[in-house]
Amino acid sequence: MIDKHELHDCLQRTDSKIIMLVVDGLGGLPRESDKRSELQVAHIPNLDNLARASACGLTIPVLQGIAPGSGPGHLALFGYDPFKHIIGRGALEAIGVDGVDFIEGDIVARGNFCTVDANNKLVDRRAGRIPSSESESLCASLDQIEVAGFDLKIYHVKDYRFVLRLRGGDSSDRLTETDPQRTGVSPLLVKAREPKAEVTAKAANQFIMQAKSILANENKANMVLLRGFSGMPSLPSFSDCLKLKAASIAAYPMYKGLTRICGMDVIPSGDTFSSEVDSLIRQFPSYDFFYIHYKDADAAGEDGNFEAKVTALENLDKYIPKIRALNPDVLIIAGDHATPSIMASHSWHPVPLCLSSPFTLGEGVDSFDENSFRKGSLGTIPAVNIMNLALAHAGKLTKFGA
Amino acid sequence: MIDKHELHDCLQRTDSKIIMLVVDGLGGLPRESDKRSELQVAHIPNLDNLARASACGLTIPVLQGIAPGSGPGHLALFGYDPFKHIIGRGALEAIGVDGVDFIEGDIVARGNFCTVDANNKLVDRRAGRIPSSESESLCASLDQIEVAGFDLKIYHVKDYRFVLRLRGGDSSDRLTETDPQRTGVSPLLVKAREPKAEVTAKAANQFIMQAKSILANENKANMVLLRGFSGMPSLPSFSDCLKLKAASIAAYPMYKGLTRICGMDVIPSGDTFSSEVDSLIRQFPSYDFFYIHYKDADAAGEDGNFEAKVTALENLDKYIPKIRALNPDVLIIAGDHATPSIMASHSWHPVPLCLSSPFTLGEGVDSFDENSFRKGSLGTIPAVNIMNLALAHAGKLTKFGA
Repeated sequence: MIDKHELHDCLQRTDSKIIMLVVDGLGGLPRESDKRSELQVAHIPNLDNLARASACGLTIPVLQGIAPGSGPGHLALFGYDPFKHIIGRGALEAIGVDGVDFIEGDIVARGNFCTVDANNKLVDRRAGRIPSSESESLCASLDQIEVAGFDLKIYHVKDYRFVLRLRGGDSSDRLTETDPQRTGVSPLLVKAREPKAEVTAKAANQFIMQAKSILANENKANMVLLRGFSGMPSLPSFSDCLKLKAASIAAYPMYKGLTRICGMDVIPSGDTFSSEVDSLIRQFPSYDFFYIHYKDADAAGEDGNFEAKVTALENLDKYIPKIRALNPDVLIIAGDHATPSIMASHSWHPVPLCLSSPFTLGEGVDSFDENSFRKGSLGTIPAVNIMNLALAHAGKLTKFGA
Repeated sequence: MIDKHELHDCLQRTDSKIIMLVVDGLGGLPRESDKRSELQVAHIPNLDNLARASACGLTIPVLQGIAPGSGPGHLALFGYDPFKHIIGRGALEAIGVDGVDFIEGDIVARGNFCTVDANNKLVDRRAGRIPSSESESLCASLDQIEVAGFDLKIYHVKDYRFVLRLRGGDSSDRLTETDPQRTGVSPLLVKAREPKAEVTAKAANQFIMQAKSILANENKANMVLLRGFSGMPSLPSFSDCLKLKAASIAAYPMYKGLTRICGMDVIPSGDTFSSEVDSLIRQFPSYDFFYIHYKDADAAGEDGNFEAKVTALENLDKYIPKIRALNPDVLIIAGDHATPSIMASHSWHPVPLCLSSPFTLGEGVDSFDENSFRKGSLGTIPAVNIMNLALAHAGKLTKFGA
């Protein structure tokens, strides 16, 4: 929708309200034992009830066969063509950490602590996954490094990961990575892939040299690797393009950062889904679009814990009456991708999509799961088209063409 | 997949193996008598069994309503956008004949024998579909023609059809056809559609004039028409783009030629499907992607012979256990297009698609046919996306975006 400029003239502001509840990793797969998926096993009467009053279907997050990261998975849900708007790894890492000072013009990279031998050959690309308790002080040391002409900052992320921010160079992020992706060889130098990235490349290499000398006597990590150099992503504003007043309600920094870049108002919403729902209720009069994020289903799926994912879905179910009680014009339950427990990772499988509005009366789908939703009226559609449906059902999208 | 360059970074080489069995003209339509399609009538217990353990769906070969030729039908299966990669008729004809010497820089055209009256007006554009027994010697005569500066060859194809190959001119194939597409008018001259095609246009016209004088006293065919001038198609390599070691196993020259152009290793595989399967078994340790082609279903459909197509499908069914016994990580059964017997031609109808892998447990589809597959989890998808699924299920496609 964002990239379909031909349709933007059909958009109109109205008082109607849309809630999009994104259940991270919503879709699953049947387990071997009883050939039932997490959604099929879970006792989720409120979601089943909602399905009975909704239009149902499945979404392809990006394209058949493509397992997306959270970036492209969410961008598609918001109506951005995920092939057109690609957010670099460094940027996603930076916006995923609370308190990172990252603005237009900065270049960020994801850093890994690693170990090299006496000949500068890589021994461990993740320094034994050194825990945060030890890496935080190393980050503090690296943060002392100064490179002339640059304002350089190091932010600890988690375990062996940190963010390097360079401010003051050109804004080109066309820089090569230093991680050779295998051990037994030396870390690479940063190279500029275009002339206007050269000053930043030189600064990054100076940082690396100083980091090496600071870490020389450390046992656990004596070198760093830099990946995913990125400038601040520039996205067309969701709120402006779609003529919405959009609120983002998420507990995790990455989703807050991502929706801030999309031009949503990020509402402080605590650390739990319960506090997110409280925030939704509080803010309900003030916005007409609400993104609210539920993380636990994905986390359990990523851990390969089928039962935990079932429990996460059952916990979510308990909040559905509270959300429906707000009586939004359109309530959408969608997922950014499937995270089947049997795969313990994001996957490419179709994800359930449920949309209720005054124009949906149900369609014989009486169970909130992958198999039942296959028979729904929405069919299996690209996730990038969900916002079209949301806006249409909300009366915000008028006729296209005369 | 081939044209989605953004995804190529997600590809990785692994030891897993993919078999794509392409059943030419797989899809059909119900006949009047019992309203059952060829697949529904056929007794195909092994294919039914495979469906029970697979993810099922239907594919749109090119676009709704478009009945593709073998070129675009196959290109889509291999992940090429069939609108972007168009193989000229002359080239497809040339690569479809065993022994044609056709290389980069050559220009080929499809030739038809035809008849003209005393005033050079076309009487029959196909010379009464003159049989091969008579046209072969005519081709041998035309092959004697010499045009200064060119190495010219004539290859007999079948009946009234031949291939003209011109070597030595510029490589532009921007040349007009000589077939006016109706009788009662004169054959046209070849014209260059851009300056650098002029030398070849002149050579083609010299060939036509000499051909006319050679054929002047023939009863059955006294003139030729030239269509579909094409240079050697240049396609991005399937094997390189998708990081596969790909083998093509086909009995018919056209499919061998097409896959050679795609950058697959064409394995000598005899003349029958039985010898193709032997070749597959022999080569199984040496490659990680196998295209294997089954022609008989299409041939029977093209003949409008419902029973023969049923038999062709039943014959195919007998080979399925042998193929499954290889235990490929991913086994796909797909078709390049439907060839419904009741239409006696290629059609635009959705084609069954069946994919089995360690991640498919079956989904309640228990019969290998068009109607049952409609209820499968893959939905109805563009054929160009099959390779994404194949690669994902084989673990060769990693997460897109962070």
